[in-house]
Amino acid sequence: MKRILLTVAYDGTDFCGWQTQPGKRTVEGELNKALTEMTGKEIAVIGASRTDSGVHGKGNLACFDYDGPVPADRFYLALNTYLPDDIRVRASEEVKADFHPRHCDSKKTYEYTYYCDAVPMPTERRFAAYTFVKPDIEAMNRAAAYLVGEHDFKSFCCVRTQAESTVRRIITIDVFARDENHVVIRVTGNGFLYNMVRIIAGTLLEVGAGRYEPEIVREMLNATDRCAAGKTAPPEGLTLVRIEIPPEEKYL
Amino acid sequence: MKRILLTVAYDGTDFCGWQTQPGKRTVEGELNKALTEMTGKEIAVIGASRTDSGVHGKGNLACFDYDGPVPADRFYLALNTYLPDDIRVRASEEVKADFHPRHCDSKKTYEYTYYCDAVPMPTERRFAAYTFVKPDIEAMNRAAAYLVGEHDFKSFCCVRTQAESTVRRIITIDVFARDENHVVIRVTGNGFLYNMVRIIAGTLLEVGAGRYEPEIVREMLNATDRCAAGKTAPPEGLTLVRIEIPPEEKYL
Repeated sequence: MKRILLTVAYDGTDFCGWQTQPGKRTVEGELNKALTEMTGKEIAVIGASRTDSGVHGKGNLACFDYDGPVPADRFYLALNTYLPDDIRVRASEEVKADFHPRHCDSKKTYEYTYYCDAVPMPTERRFAAYTFVKPDIEAMNRAAAYLVGEHDFKSFCCVRTQAESTVRRIITIDVFARDENHVVIRVTGNGFLYNMVRIIAGTLLEVGAGRYEPEIVREMLNATDRCAAGKTAPPEGLTLVRIEIPPEEKYL
Repeated sequence: MKRILLTVAYDGTDFCGWQTQPGKRTVEGELNKALTEMTGKEIAVIGASRTDSGVHGKGNLACFDYDGPVPADRFYLALNTYLPDDIRVRASEEVKADFHPRHCDSKKTYEYTYYCDAVPMPTERRFAAYTFVKPDIEAMNRAAAYLVGEHDFKSFCCVRTQAESTVRRIITIDVFARDENHVVIRVTGNGFLYNMVRIIAGTLLEVGAGRYEPEIVREMLNATDRCAAGKTAPPEGLTLVRIEIPPEEKYL
């Protein structure tokens, strides 16, 4: 028996999020179905990040135990032939038997993308949130700087969160123009609360639009109250780009 | 009565192309339906470019005659509220009464995008053709240079073409890496034959993969035989970016 770790990419548009739910199409559900079909055994993966409905993944992680003949580092090639085309496993590798993708040190990087123009562009609507605002990127970066470090992010998480602690550490946030019409917020941290990146993205856009001064983000943090921060930006703009785990957590 | 010209953008994935066909969902069909619903009159647009099934548009053009109260330059705002979210009209303006978007001098720019990686990326599959090849962009540009100018493009058009002449003029072709994984072929010309850009894209990828020498493109042109050129690249990689029409063709 070996534990295999998959790197999973998906277009989240047509999924009810990552986590299995009865009667709903989810990424985890499709992975389990494909693994069971491929191996002939009931397999249920453990995912690293339970992304929301409509949120995309380029590097989510999932692991499961397997004792068949397919080599771990070639497993993804076979599995892809069982998956729908909005999910692709990008890599597979063997990890130590007690590895758990949520109970380990990790750094997650998300990108939130806005498409900024006078009229929406249909070819952008699945992977970027639309805004007619041409945001002030410099103001957004000044606001974002207040979020870097370890803070209680209670103001920046959904009131329905079940997390015991709302303290998290943001390692970096960068706001930049990818081209004339795309503004990207790239954030790396050691963990994120429910809706945290989308509330940060919504708040930073309001700063970029001149509705809030950048300095108000500090007060928002201090309020530890969801009502103090800005709107939750829509899911289509959000992509989980990668999850970095130190080798000693993964391998013996 | 005035003639209104629309700039039309669409995600071509879920359309059976531009041109109206009975029982099929097409861009032209949806535009006509929305215009009829908005104005209460039967309206049928005349399109500039009848893009194929699965091909995208950022700047296709369509015109029609209208005698209602909505100002031409604000018409698109109202029309967008009647359209499905995979079509957006980006601009509208009044043009002269005898303007015809296919019977005028114009410059069309298309982009063909390849996503190049070991494994497909689900978030790219609608707007880029996948290839595991890391193509040699310099070789592709050398091959592309043979296509610039006025040539008989019979080898580079679908055998089912109904065009009387297969002579066309390509003004520029550039092949470039948009980032680590995207290779873009941008081509501007005064008109394109059926499947011409997709056959050029398929042929240039084979050059980029080292299957053909760049110089062979000259022989392909001279053969005036579809069998001489490379494969037709799939539709999802193709986007009609813009159509430029000189002001004197549009306005009195």
